[in-house]
Amino acid sequence: MADSPNCDLKSLSPLQLFERVTEQGEKVRALKAGKAPKDEIDAAVRMLLSLKLSYKSTTGQDYQAGLPPRDLELINNGTTKEEDEDFVDPWTVQTSNAKGVDYDKLIVRFGSSKIDTNLINRIERAIGQKPHRFLRRGIFFSHRDMDQILDAYENKKSFYLYTGRGPSSQAMHVGHLIPFIFTKWLQEVFDVPLVIQLTDDEKYLWKDLTTEKAYEYARENAKDIIACGFDINKTFIFSDLDYLGTSTGFYKNIVKVQKHVTFNQVKGIFGFTDSDCIGKISFPAIQAAPSFSSSFPQIFNGKENIQCLIPCAIDQDPYFRMTRDVAPRIGQPKPALLHSVFFPALQGAQTKMSASDPNSSIFLTDTPKQIKTKINKHAFSGGRDTIEEHRKYGGNCDVDVSFMYLTFFLEDDDRLEQLKQAYTSGELLTGELKKVLIETLQPLIAAHQERRKQVTDEMVKQFMTPRKLAFEF
Amino acid sequence: MADSPNCDLKSLSPLQLFERVTEQGEKVRALKAGKAPKDEIDAAVRMLLSLKLSYKSTTGQDYQAGLPPRDLELINNGTTKEEDEDFVDPWTVQTSNAKGVDYDKLIVRFGSSKIDTNLINRIERAIGQKPHRFLRRGIFFSHRDMDQILDAYENKKSFYLYTGRGPSSQAMHVGHLIPFIFTKWLQEVFDVPLVIQLTDDEKYLWKDLTTEKAYEYARENAKDIIACGFDINKTFIFSDLDYLGTSTGFYKNIVKVQKHVTFNQVKGIFGFTDSDCIGKISFPAIQAAPSFSSSFPQIFNGKENIQCLIPCAIDQDPYFRMTRDVAPRIGQPKPALLHSVFFPALQGAQTKMSASDPNSSIFLTDTPKQIKTKINKHAFSGGRDTIEEHRKYGGNCDVDVSFMYLTFFLEDDDRLEQLKQAYTSGELLTGELKKVLIETLQPLIAAHQERRKQVTDEMVKQFMTPRKLAFEF
Repeated sequence: MADSPNCDLKSLSPLQLFERVTEQGEKVRALKAGKAPKDEIDAAVRMLLSLKLSYKSTTGQDYQAGLPPRDLELINNGTTKEEDEDFVDPWTVQTSNAKGVDYDKLIVRFGSSKIDTNLINRIERAIGQKPHRFLRRGIFFSHRDMDQILDAYENKKSFYLYTGRGPSSQAMHVGHLIPFIFTKWLQEVFDVPLVIQLTDDEKYLWKDLTTEKAYEYARENAKDIIACGFDINKTFIFSDLDYLGTSTGFYKNIVKVQKHVTFNQVKGIFGFTDSDCIGKISFPAIQAAPSFSSSFPQIFNGKENIQCLIPCAIDQDPYFRMTRDVAPRIGQPKPALLHSVFFPALQGAQTKMSASDPNSSIFLTDTPKQIKTKINKHAFSGGRDTIEEHRKYGGNCDVDVSFMYLTFFLEDDDRLEQLKQAYTSGELLTGELKKVLIETLQPLIAAHQERRKQVTDEMVKQFMTPRKLAFEF
Repeated sequence: MADSPNCDLKSLSPLQLFERVTEQGEKVRALKAGKAPKDEIDAAVRMLLSLKLSYKSTTGQDYQAGLPPRDLELINNGTTKEEDEDFVDPWTVQTSNAKGVDYDKLIVRFGSSKIDTNLINRIERAIGQKPHRFLRRGIFFSHRDMDQILDAYENKKSFYLYTGRGPSSQAMHVGHLIPFIFTKWLQEVFDVPLVIQLTDDEKYLWKDLTTEKAYEYARENAKDIIACGFDINKTFIFSDLDYLGTSTGFYKNIVKVQKHVTFNQVKGIFGFTDSDCIGKISFPAIQAAPSFSSSFPQIFNGKENIQCLIPCAIDQDPYFRMTRDVAPRIGQPKPALLHSVFFPALQGAQTKMSASDPNSSIFLTDTPKQIKTKINKHAFSGGRDTIEEHRKYGGNCDVDVSFMYLTFFLEDDDRLEQLKQAYTSGELLTGELKKVLIETLQPLIAAHQERRKQVTDEMVKQFMTPRKLAFEF
């Protein structure tokens, strides 16, 4: 029996330490009961005290007989009940599941509707075209009132699109493109006008930024958005800091929303506290207001009550649940929504890609070499540890980030299915799958960069000028 | 002894009832101790129970021997300790004192400075004119940093004026004129530009009004304000609902203030609760922002950090305490302030004149006959009950509303002093004092009405158009 029990204690979990203390206590009691020699008892007691000390320094709590460190154990292993629930709000997306957020559960929790085969088929009939891969592959997976949009569309009643972005930095990543790629497709197939909100005021309120910097980011981001190929005659891009001061319709809708939402409500929806600034507390109304066409008198020629459809990632839904709640009370139609899944971080689908973590993101400014390095180095693999095991058991597409990215960006359904089967069967190795992704993303981003270079300051100015859009309602 | 003790109990105060119960209890004990006949004791007990029942139904509490209903007593008589404190916030002014709010106490509570003889003399020297009667008579009685304004002014550094009004109805009363009469004088003697905010958004948020109606009131009120004689080349009047959508500088300052004020702070300053709408919660920033010249890029030709001086009634100070707290943190100069007393209601100085109570107010639209009737009928008198008593003891100018109004509107200091002495000595009767007030107000309001008729829609448009004002800084 070793006299120094500490040598290997640091590697023990709180529960293992608890068991060691308990065992040692029993040993001491047995020695005493058996009237063992004093030095033997003393040594056992010293070891008990030493174990108790280790227990306390590891758990921060005194050892109590019969009370195992349950809470700590659970926290350390990340398996508490709360953590089984995905966490999704406009600022944080977190799940413990490597497959990503459970979107079916989210639909139930948010009270939205699943985009099912029926709806996809109906869209296909309405537009007379194959639905976008984001619809075919469940990337846009949830909706609110999309059937009403189609009812109206089939009766020759049109609508407008509204999406947006918070310009927190100059750097946009590929994940940021998802709503814009899809919105551009919607604009094309439905032939409708579009407003894009850049919430530079939000970023000023939430981040350590000046208003000037936030506005600069908005203008820079606008260039990347324009590079997605929006129709300049049917698209209005606006910065809140700028547009709020140039449209009386916008502020009037903001103040109307603000009159009909209490602090209690935004506390419940967004988790604000009494220590939050009043700017954050009232901001949700600013994201709500573009859902109403009267916020854009110049664009819609003063026409009000035009139906709005909002394509966005599902974490933005809380804003629009609030908006839909308020809309009838201020005499406005409820906006319809199409929700996308999150774009996973390179490290895995437990969280979304974030521009503030460069290693988690492929930026729109990355060189082909940077793209290759990042994917090879950081993209979480669902492959096996060795080539032999991989060949034998195959890879797991459900958690493989490279495969997930391909579902976003590879247009060819057959090719994607072949890759999936080859990877799952073990025929295709992780390195080979990554190579396909690299070869898909490199030209895509290079083309984006090329288009972005063509975006002049004059074009940005034109896109950001409030003006009548080429559409009659 | 009456069997039915309830006949007159309803007219008794809780304390009187308490005493009756106590007496009756003693009587019962005395009868029992003296071994009185059973029916006599029973009758006394019945009465005791009946009295206790009355006590409980009146006070809502069980009778407890030795514990008189102190709290209730005080509430009913309106003399609790709390009520000794005046209540002043932007929405309510209330005092139990017929002389009105204790303004010296308010200066201490708000942490502002008294406008003393030294400051008034200094203003006189700076402008080379007799100070306005509102200064001479302590109607503008408190300030913040007025000495700094004068320091700068004496060094040829100018400033701008900012005042405002919440357009809750078409009807403005004479009390509403006080800040505008004084501001017009300040504009003249200091020769400075002026911005006047009409918080139609506030009225929309607080009242049962549409935005259209609130804006209409703003435009109507603008006519009365213009009729005060402001210099069209040096005055900009704006409605929030309108101007917020036409000035990027304004919204940028609003969002800057909103970033630097928490809900906890506005809760403390304005008493907002979790059930208040987010519009109310964020509104203080909208009243704060015009204190910064960068909110008016067109007016000041883009020049920032021009010092601001705000003449207003003291109940508006909470907004500007908040503004002054935020200003240095957003790189702006703190606005200076000049505070006026409240304009008393016709019924007495316990509260201020309110447009929502027609009997408390003399409106700018009232006919000479209405003015006469209202003053004769409602103006609280400090005179005695009979002519004989009045001649003997004299009237009390400290509580007499007609005399108070004369201190606001009668320009001639000597005449005012004569009236005071004559009224106090009993020489002047209440009816005679009221006649002086009627004869002062009738031509004043008629002249206002005449000037208001001259205000054309074109003039309103001009005053409300953002434009460079005739002033070089």
